[in-house]
Amino acid sequence: MTRRFHTIALFGKYNDPDIGHVVNDLARFLREAGCRVLLEDATAAHLSEPAAEVASREAIGRQADLAIVVGGDGTMLNVARALTGFEVPLLGVNLGRLGFLTDIPADQMTLALRPILAGEYESETRCMLHAEIMRAGRIVHTANALNDVIVSKAVLSRLIEFEVYLDGEFLNSLRADGVIVATPTGSTAYALSAGGPILHPTLAATVIVPICPHTLSDRPIVIGNDSVVEILMTGNGSQAAQVTFDGQSSMPLDDNDRIYVRRGETPVTLIHPSGRNHYEVLRAKLRWGEKL
Amino acid sequence: MTRRFHTIALFGKYNDPDIGHVVNDLARFLREAGCRVLLEDATAAHLSEPAAEVASREAIGRQADLAIVVGGDGTMLNVARALTGFEVPLLGVNLGRLGFLTDIPADQMTLALRPILAGEYESETRCMLHAEIMRAGRIVHTANALNDVIVSKAVLSRLIEFEVYLDGEFLNSLRADGVIVATPTGSTAYALSAGGPILHPTLAATVIVPICPHTLSDRPIVIGNDSVVEILMTGNGSQAAQVTFDGQSSMPLDDNDRIYVRRGETPVTLIHPSGRNHYEVLRAKLRWGEKL
Amino acid sequence: MTRRFHTIALFGKYNDPDIGHVVNDLARFLREAGCRVLLEDATAAHLSEPAAEVASREAIGRQADLAIVVGGDGTMLNVARALTGFEVPLLGVNLGRLGFLTDIPADQMTLALRPILAGEYESETRCMLHAEIMRAGRIVHTANALNDVIVSKAVLSRLIEFEVYLDGEFLNSLRADGVIVATPTGSTAYALSAGGPILHPTLAATVIVPICPHTLSDRPIVIGNDSVVEILMTGNGSQAAQVTFDGQSSMPLDDNDRIYVRRGETPVTLIHPSGRNHYEVLRAKLRWGEKL
Amino acid sequence: MTRRFHTIALFGKYNDPDIGHVVNDLARFLREAGCRVLLEDATAAHLSEPAAEVASREAIGRQADLAIVVGGDGTMLNVARALTGFEVPLLGVNLGRLGFLTDIPADQMTLALRPILAGEYESETRCMLHAEIMRAGRIVHTANALNDVIVSKAVLSRLIEFEVYLDGEFLNSLRADGVIVATPTGSTAYALSAGGPILHPTLAATVIVPICPHTLSDRPIVIGNDSVVEILMTGNGSQAAQVTFDGQSSMPLDDNDRIYVRRGETPVTLIHPSGRNHYEVLRAKLRWGEKL
Repeated sequence: MTRRFHTIALFGKYNDPDIGHVVNDLARFLREAGCRVLLEDATAAHLSEPAAEVASREAIGRQADLAIVVGGDGTMLNVARALTGFEVPLLGVNLGRLGFLTDIPADQMTLALRPILAGEYESETRCMLHAEIMRAGRIVHTANALNDVIVSKAVLSRLIEFEVYLDGEFLNSLRADGVIVATPTGSTAYALSAGGPILHPTLAATVIVPICPHTLSDRPIVIGNDSVVEILMTGNGSQAAQVTFDGQSSMPLDDNDRIYVRRGETPVTLIHPSGRNHYEVLRAKLRWGEKL
Repeated sequence: MTRRFHTIALFGKYNDPDIGHVVNDLARFLREAGCRVLLEDATAAHLSEPAAEVASREAIGRQADLAIVVGGDGTMLNVARALTGFEVPLLGVNLGRLGFLTDIPADQMTLALRPILAGEYESETRCMLHAEIMRAGRIVHTANALNDVIVSKAVLSRLIEFEVYLDGEFLNSLRADGVIVATPTGSTAYALSAGGPILHPTLAATVIVPICPHTLSDRPIVIGNDSVVEILMTGNGSQAAQVTFDGQSSMPLDDNDRIYVRRGETPVTLIHPSGRNHYEVLRAKLRWGEKL
Repeated sequence: MTRRFHTIALFGKYNDPDIGHVVNDLARFLREAGCRVLLEDATAAHLSEPAAEVASREAIGRQADLAIVVGGDGTMLNVARALTGFEVPLLGVNLGRLGFLTDIPADQMTLALRPILAGEYESETRCMLHAEIMRAGRIVHTANALNDVIVSKAVLSRLIEFEVYLDGEFLNSLRADGVIVATPTGSTAYALSAGGPILHPTLAATVIVPICPHTLSDRPIVIGNDSVVEILMTGNGSQAAQVTFDGQSSMPLDDNDRIYVRRGETPVTLIHPSGRNHYEVLRAKLRWGEKL
Repeated sequence: MTRRFHTIALFGKYNDPDIGHVVNDLARFLREAGCRVLLEDATAAHLSEPAAEVASREAIGRQADLAIVVGGDGTMLNVARALTGFEVPLLGVNLGRLGFLTDIPADQMTLALRPILAGEYESETRCMLHAEIMRAGRIVHTANALNDVIVSKAVLSRLIEFEVYLDGEFLNSLRADGVIVATPTGSTAYALSAGGPILHPTLAATVIVPICPHTLSDRPIVIGNDSVVEILMTGNGSQAAQVTFDGQSSMPLDDNDRIYVRRGETPVTLIHPSGRNHYEVLRAKLRWGEKL
């Protein structure tokens, strides 16, 4: 019933000296298992002797039927955004520290991959966000995010002001360090540090979390992910604020800019070893109590 | 298109001396408008001269096509639970202080009701919760709630311990003052005071909010309302904890009791004047910022 | 320079089956080291063969120059309150789980005690709280607390209302589950779970922490410990609230009761092995980050 | 008993078009009352016709025995830092919105000032912070702050890492948006938005508040203001962080920079109309409950 993976792309965390041999070991293992292996060009650029065919992100998007990402959750976010729309499922290999998205430790990866290549795995889909920045009546920027879209002050230690609308209706105005619009995936990342709740990964919802709001009753709000969140920048001056996608790419904002955030058209598919338990990861990452 | 209301039941907040004349004024107004009026028996017992036909809650459930509740949100919660399963829509009249559920002030009630009786109104549905308490293998108690099901310590200033399961899977164990399982409606009530997020009323979700948890990373979790939350009492001793429904009825708990909370089968329908804006109520109640 | 300990009293956690042999081992070790050993009578009642002279708490207060407490922080709180005013320093032995107050593990106790008996130790003082309950113009109850004085609802899942005064001046009124008045020692206990800050143990301060307040801007307040906190119960009805001392003893409250909380006259002295580091305990208990 | 004010300096909020006539009205009123009036040069530069003798901040520091500040709390902070060490008391006039530091509304200022000039007033002192930035073994910057010293990320939406030491002892390491070191005065400003407690203005304490910390158990800590807080920047890269004083002046930080924060040598004196009640200001600003 499950799909078998034949063409597998490899992505590695950039600038990490330990990545090289993990990626090359992986490439060799996969080829021996009969797979075609594509190595992302930017990853390959960091390896002294790339052990696989080098390919662009676009070529990977068109050809690969699985992408294995070696690194941390940040690398997964980066690849997820890069492959938006291509429907290549992702599998994350961590370098020692368990991630929410990268649940296979590098030193157990071949053990974990063997059943997955044999078709024994679990897959789940995670929604993404799609953001549009409107300035003077036209869209000047679009971007995707798997975790969050963050509007925040660019000049430090000053509040920014903005209004929030849901599906075109005014919700409230805020004076704060910023605001986070997060998916369930992003709810355990920065949004959690800012006081947001945890959203179950399967919940069709988005959470809006104010960052250090001036008004103490400004609290996180959870809405359906079929709603459009609109943030209208007001009275901060030019480039006093900025919008950031997954904490990895950003653009400066001006007064009267409108940031529209809605659910992305295509979700990301994550591949996990059979029996992976999301709650177990939550308990480990958040150091929650085990059974009494 | 909208339903017209012919048989209207009246409920008033008990033990409130101001209720009598509001309820009787309402009864006269509705009769003059051509409606049949039923007065809940317990409400009638508090009036010196009930100005309408007295009826039991069950008779009201079977016959009324609208229930008007005069009081605060607490009275609405009480009536919602009493009429669970009967599909009688509710309309709330407050006595001066805006409520989340009671949005018509008593001094404007006839003005607000005229268009509603003429079929000009808005209706929305709110999910309820259904709780079952299992002890020694059998269900010993069931109850409904519009706001929340709360498990909390009965002996004050001591923690209780319990385990939480979602759809049968172990989520975590907590040592806390208790835990709140709340609907979107309940998310702006006690759950908010305990640090929970606001859930949009249309979101098909339930939030689990720990009360003063010992482990600081125990945070509110939002799940789909098609999931079953199970709370297993462990090691607290007999009657050291209790479960409460909408903060209004409760029962003591023993070790090994299991509390199952799921979405109720029938939602409540709330009737509002046309143009009522939920965000406006939120802004007023939480003193949020207006447009900049 | 430091005081040597000659008469040492032993207290054990009640109802703990493991306490017996630890307490008896300790008694033998101390006698061999040349000390006179007194065994608290209630502790002795739990031992099959008490290995030391049994004494009342009062006799211990008058005669002992050190009290060793075997158990957890709760047992320490209990003994600290029992010996208030006697100026007997306390030393805590834990049964495996590090406590804020009990920093010597039972399996290393003789190793840790040898230098302490030789006069090599550190001592620190911790302030206590003294509470008076005034009803109808007279003091009806007094109590001491090392951690906290808590006013909270007695009927569950209902708010209580009260007013807070500082040195006789009105501070604010609250609707909440209750309020915690805590010492620096208590700031890492229940007050922390309720959202309070950590107070440095040497800070001459008291923190007032509302428990699940209805008004979201009701926040913890830190005041000097030479101030008197007064809590006036209002409009809750008879016995709807209660006051609790260190979470261990309590009394019901009526409307118009006033709870006065001030710094106790005599602080508690805690004895620690030399080199004990309070921040290390904080880091271990709260799982904070170690050096980068 | 109280000091009379003879030479009074005026400061106005910059770039505020309404300031001009308030400042000039004030100058005329004070001259008529027999005072010598000095107008801060930067304030004068914003007025079309300055109605008083213009003076530098330094001249004001040496000659004035009162400084009246027209604006908001931000303007007060600015003047307090500018006059550090000069012991000129400050009096704040707000332009309509009550401030924590500016409690006299402009439209009642002459009414409020008359008794103050006659010697009828209250004064209170507020501690300031003094910060030193050490780089490569030498102090490269010093600054004062009345509210807070904030270390925060300069590149947005990325965490920074740092270690915190108290009086030279390692407290903990944090990964966070930053950290706030605040006085009691600053505890009701940004620190409150970041989750800090309120410190009573007379408390000899400093609060350390992490901003959106990654580890959820990293909580605000209150210490005596005779302690030195040291923040050591680690592993963030050059200029990835910055330090800000009262949210108004800042400098970029490099790895291995150490920020030392201690109590400033001279406190600020604030002048208030007699009978001013700090708790009343707190209740008004935070919308707390009044007497029940």
